[in-house]
Amino acid sequence: MLRLYSWPTPNGQKIHIALEELELPYELVPVNIGAGEQFKPEFLAITPNHRIPAIVDPEGPGGELPLFESGAILMYLAEKTGKLLPKDPRARYLALQWLMFQMGGVGPMFGQQGHFVFYAKEKIPYALDRYTNEVRRLYGVLETRLSQSTYLAGDEYSIADIATFPWARGGDRRGFDVPKDFPNVQRWIEAIDARPAVKRGLAVLEDRTRTKPVTDAERDVLFGSKQFATR
Amino acid sequence: MLRLYSWPTPNGQKIHIALEELELPYELVPVNIGAGEQFKPEFLAITPNHRIPAIVDPEGPGGELPLFESGAILMYLAEKTGKLLPKDPRARYLALQWLMFQMGGVGPMFGQQGHFVFYAKEKIPYALDRYTNEVRRLYGVLETRLSQSTYLAGDEYSIADIATFPWARGGDRRGFDVPKDFPNVQRWIEAIDARPAVKRGLAVLEDRTRTKPVTDAERDVLFGSKQFATR
Repeated sequence: MLRLYSWPTPNGQKIHIALEELELPYELVPVNIGAGEQFKPEFLAITPNHRIPAIVDPEGPGGELPLFESGAILMYLAEKTGKLLPKDPRARYLALQWLMFQMGGVGPMFGQQGHFVFYAKEKIPYALDRYTNEVRRLYGVLETRLSQSTYLAGDEYSIADIATFPWARGGDRRGFDVPKDFPNVQRWIEAIDARPAVKRGLAVLEDRTRTKPVTDAERDVLFGSKQFATR
Repeated sequence: MLRLYSWPTPNGQKIHIALEELELPYELVPVNIGAGEQFKPEFLAITPNHRIPAIVDPEGPGGELPLFESGAILMYLAEKTGKLLPKDPRARYLALQWLMFQMGGVGPMFGQQGHFVFYAKEKIPYALDRYTNEVRRLYGVLETRLSQSTYLAGDEYSIADIATFPWARGGDRRGFDVPKDFPNVQRWIEAIDARPAVKRGLAVLEDRTRTKPVTDAERDVLFGSKQFATR
């Protein structure tokens, strides 16, 4: 059975949702990233980047396949099952374009905003402004696209939507009024949120979701010197 | 003929190099991002994200295909030509994994470090520390991989290397001693740098490479309110 190494972060949730949509059975291996479990040798053997999510597919091409990076895992799962990625070449490239937009834009920049809003010990006005502006810009790009198209790649729900949804939802926590300012993004969030597989995917590890402020010990594990002790 | 909209930044250089490696003829359309040319309607029609690089392939699947996001363009060009992406499924997923690692990790985080080192008007110790540490961590992940493998995906040079090289070179400007601290990264940089197609790719728009400090007017175009006036 496919093993998924994960934790309830947006990048983890992408894979929870995809596996539920695809109805692929899997064994879940929680990796408590606040407690430093990502530095265990068995996890480092799967990903030298020591970031969740990662998978190991015992029935991969050429034998057991370890794979990391949520975007690569989504492509692998879509191609393995022939679902969630359009077959038409033109639509497929549009899906890959928006998947890359999530991987290179939405994920990293929403992530930086989250760092300075939720995790950093100091409040740094320049960084808060920079990343809040960038999140606003990215919401705007999504709004432009979703005012022309039901889903990011076109008429078809795809891994591009699955990758972007866990980051785009919850805009209120980030200081945005998405229903008012980005109505097409809101329409798209609600449509995805209503899917049974998405509800199941978001429920995975939900009891481990952070409810308390980050501690100094967790900061050291997540952002500090510990990260450099793995080589 | 394929049109490439670009500027001599690492993300632009990825595509210059790939097109030279693939010996695909193309028409170059410079987009001076410091002068705000990315906000022209003709460019916004290709990419609502108003970022270089973007391409338009008049002979795309289903007719003229506009495509943005360097990672998606690299995949498109590799699949169009059957080159620079392994055919073996296992090796292909490793190439996609490292391409995604570049798109989601190396590009955004080297980019943030560059912002705070080269572009920000204030020097912000927290942000400089944060992103310099992250660049060091990412160089370390590349070192681990390249100590086991000739290229990122394995024995074969691929779009994963082309995507990562323009960001990884020039570590000295970022305050790193790559030859000393990351010798396998250095070996890999030198091997790629020696390729004739890479030399040709880096020469594209080389005369437009920034040699002067960024001005306030450029800051406004690149990071300021101008970005929100496109919708």
